[in-house]
Amino acid sequence: MENKYSYDFLKKFTVTLFEKIGCPHEDALVIAEVLIEAELRGIPSHGLMRVSDYIGLFEAKRINVKPNITKVHETLSTATVDGDNSFGMIGGKKAMQLAISKAKATGSGWVAMKNSNHFGIAGYYAMMAAENDMIGIAMTNANPLVAPTWSTSRFLGTNPLAVAVPAGSEPTFVADFATTPIARGKLAIKEKKGETVPIGFVQDKTGAPSNDPGILKDGGAIVPLGGDYEHGSHKGYCMGAIVDILSAIPGGANFGPFVPPQVSYLPLLEKSVGQGLGHFFGAMRIDAFRPASEFKASMDEWIQTFRNAKPAEGQDKVLIPGDPERIKTEKHKKEGISLMPSVLEDLNKVASKYGVELIS
Amino acid sequence: MENKYSYDFLKKFTVTLFEKIGCPHEDALVIAEVLIEAELRGIPSHGLMRVSDYIGLFEAKRINVKPNITKVHETLSTATVDGDNSFGMIGGKKAMQLAISKAKATGSGWVAMKNSNHFGIAGYYAMMAAENDMIGIAMTNANPLVAPTWSTSRFLGTNPLAVAVPAGSEPTFVADFATTPIARGKLAIKEKKGETVPIGFVQDKTGAPSNDPGILKDGGAIVPLGGDYEHGSHKGYCMGAIVDILSAIPGGANFGPFVPPQVSYLPLLEKSVGQGLGHFFGAMRIDAFRPASEFKASMDEWIQTFRNAKPAEGQDKVLIPGDPERIKTEKHKKEGISLMPSVLEDLNKVASKYGVELIS
Repeated sequence: MENKYSYDFLKKFTVTLFEKIGCPHEDALVIAEVLIEAELRGIPSHGLMRVSDYIGLFEAKRINVKPNITKVHETLSTATVDGDNSFGMIGGKKAMQLAISKAKATGSGWVAMKNSNHFGIAGYYAMMAAENDMIGIAMTNANPLVAPTWSTSRFLGTNPLAVAVPAGSEPTFVADFATTPIARGKLAIKEKKGETVPIGFVQDKTGAPSNDPGILKDGGAIVPLGGDYEHGSHKGYCMGAIVDILSAIPGGANFGPFVPPQVSYLPLLEKSVGQGLGHFFGAMRIDAFRPASEFKASMDEWIQTFRNAKPAEGQDKVLIPGDPERIKTEKHKKEGISLMPSVLEDLNKVASKYGVELIS
Repeated sequence: MENKYSYDFLKKFTVTLFEKIGCPHEDALVIAEVLIEAELRGIPSHGLMRVSDYIGLFEAKRINVKPNITKVHETLSTATVDGDNSFGMIGGKKAMQLAISKAKATGSGWVAMKNSNHFGIAGYYAMMAAENDMIGIAMTNANPLVAPTWSTSRFLGTNPLAVAVPAGSEPTFVADFATTPIARGKLAIKEKKGETVPIGFVQDKTGAPSNDPGILKDGGAIVPLGGDYEHGSHKGYCMGAIVDILSAIPGGANFGPFVPPQVSYLPLLEKSVGQGLGHFFGAMRIDAFRPASEFKASMDEWIQTFRNAKPAEGQDKVLIPGDPERIKTEKHKKEGISLMPSVLEDLNKVASKYGVELIS
């Protein structure tokens, strides 16, 4: 029987742990909130599983736990923020707050961020804007595992994009997705189980399709969304490239193959073309285009229309982006959050090291 | 032997034709420019092939050739424009010009557009911003042919997204792509030839994968980029949904299944949830984030890095988004543009009807 833990319990644990390594209380709170939001939403790959990697980066002196996050450039509706090599969510949340405040003043706000690290789920930041009656957009580049179409070079991350759109009586539309057919974590699980993966997820070192989930160790790569050129992988490559460029070039972060690894067991790269990892955030007030009540009524109608699409044979219903995560959040809030045994073990290992009460 | 025509010759022909149906000279110029830009870039599906459909819409009194395009809502960095049921490029170009002028004033500009029609290639508008040292974004919804993941309802268009990013010594990065594995036009060609298509392009009326390019006539649908759920079609569905929502909801255009057909032989829909078809445009000054020279140097480095990615076995080189279209543009400017016999025939049919000198 699996143990389940309440949101508050896990938050207190995480906050205490990050305070122990030197994070100010308010920063530890943000780290905990973003990681546990991923657990609530049923995305454990971006949740507490990351804690031991984060602590490893701290121990390797590759993260600054007392960052001085600064605005280094701005206009009325844009800004660039230097994350001072903090945990990504510290600067990420500040950057989205800045985008929101600029949108309040001028209709829209766009913030590029350099010198950052892994920021958790992109959806967290997009939803911050939606809570303020704004369309929210968030994206990040990530360590390179994906080859452009027709290439064998691992030059792009799984580069997620999140867009949140507020509705009226319906729940917020939240699309939050990687620009690849599959995430790295899912390949690792398949590999552990000794299973193969369908053609269309990865390629071997020559660029030929492969069904080996472990092929990345042998010079292989994840392919962009679409799978192969015939099925439009160049469009997935475009998506991944757009996310990489917006995350890195305006702010001055590293792009593509130069994005620093987010685990301490991988060495830092020799070449750098910018500072740290990059993100890009946007917020647009819905009433900057039409009265908010009209926008929301129209968005409700969109959601209801798509929810009433005819299901394919064998399917119960058609989902709206954000539905699966919302349903899981409700369940996890009611029933608690369960942790995989390996994650629990890793958390208790660091807890014991830093004098934090173990999770039983 | 195929005849080839110069840009100027085709432009003069097109301008004259649209003037004959009542468009002001400057509007006819914009229609010609956008359509022939598609020919130059090697995207004939969005080029002069559309002229007879456009004229058909005019004859069916479904297009306003004397539009009064107005700004109906605005903030410092955003606006909504009513296209007054014009040809899409008339209002589209004005809307992007407005986004650019707002970006000049405040760093970024975002314009939603309702009451519009087919606007040609999205890349045209994104490139307008890039020519002004801005990141350009353009998207449009389109008549519904695509089923959401797990559905059989044709609720989305092929909904293209274009992003243009200026560089320094390198050519502009231009990604311009549909959010589906294949365009409608390519299915039609396969069907005409009596060929099948690979699995992963279309589904039948039950939602099962199909290799029949004519399946849309029998209740089938195009699938989102990704092909099926296992290969991430829900991510392509997210992309298509985001483009549909941004194109329709802020501005108040029709969304999804209610987008009006862009050919006169299809009847107008009974239900409407907004006005016309919608677009969404964005422009962000590159120097709104960092000095323009730094941005461009960094973008040059991005392009050079990706251009030097290792090609897969059997490939010559790795392409940057915009490369294929730029290479074709150079070729077409030098050698002229060739027209398919059926397109030439259609053009001469309308030319003869409106007293325009035929193309020989």
